[in-house]
Amino acid sequence: MTPIRSLDDLTPGMEFDLGSFVLTREEVLDFARRFDPQPFHLDEEAGQASIFGRLVASGLHTFSAAVGHLIRSGIFAQVNLGAGGAEIAWPAPLDPDTPVTMRVTVEEVRPSRSKPGMGIAKLRYVVARESDGTVVLRVAAPHFMKR
Amino acid sequence: MTPIRSLDDLTPGMEFDLGSFVLTREEVLDFARRFDPQPFHLDEEAGQASIFGRLVASGLHTFSAAVGHLIRSGIFAQVNLGAGGAEIAWPAPLDPDTPVTMRVTVEEVRPSRSKPGMGIAKLRYVVARESDGTVVLRVAAPHFMKR
Repeated sequence: MTPIRSLDDLTPGMEFDLGSFVLTREEVLDFARRFDPQPFHLDEEAGQASIFGRLVASGLHTFSAAVGHLIRSGIFAQVNLGAGGAEIAWPAPLDPDTPVTMRVTVEEVRPSRSKPGMGIAKLRYVVARESDGTVVLRVAAPHFMKR
Repeated sequence: MTPIRSLDDLTPGMEFDLGSFVLTREEVLDFARRFDPQPFHLDEEAGQASIFGRLVASGLHTFSAAVGHLIRSGIFAQVNLGAGGAEIAWPAPLDPDTPVTMRVTVEEVRPSRSKPGMGIAKLRYVVARESDGTVVLRVAAPHFMKR
């Protein structure tokens, strides 16, 4: 994918199809042990007894993996300076070993008034199960970017 | 810390002091390699050239570690069913090997109308540098909990 070279290359409505990724069962368990050791992320039986009805990935993992996938795409590698925050929703849980697709949309582009060399692009990420389109993650995040 | 036994044990304004935690430099680098491989999270010189002026932890790592710290405290272990989303802000970056304190406040408690055995507690987490109180993470998250 061709890297963006400036915030000014972005316009609201632009979409980037980032292809797909998978969290393996081993990765799901490893992440949960470190950062989200709740029974429904660690144990099949506990998952079945939970409101999810099965072992599912931690939402933190889904979010972290999605950002990792975006960073590795390289699209914003030359311009991204960091993000100040994020609004996250997990409409459905992500299952291990289940491919998901990721799409990023540019919602807003705002050059900084005080700092001419930078600005903010508000990006939306949507991650959905490849098999049936069920959305497992929505993120809206303001990214500081170079111009 | 005594675990909560029901959503009904929570009232708006309740605060939980969760003590402190640290992300070591090794943990910061390991997390960044997996989930946020941007130069300012991976390399000291690139960090110095960045808007942060130094190598800093990925905000995803700060967020994940804070949730992990909350889960490990056990306060909500008997009642937490999962979270539907989160609003995150990173007002300042977190430095490796720098102790931070964490505090959780109950903002709102809403029993479910349709499901008598559960409800939502909106929690706010604040993570701040122990040395000077600089806030590095604010989270507001609706947690589904048992009653």
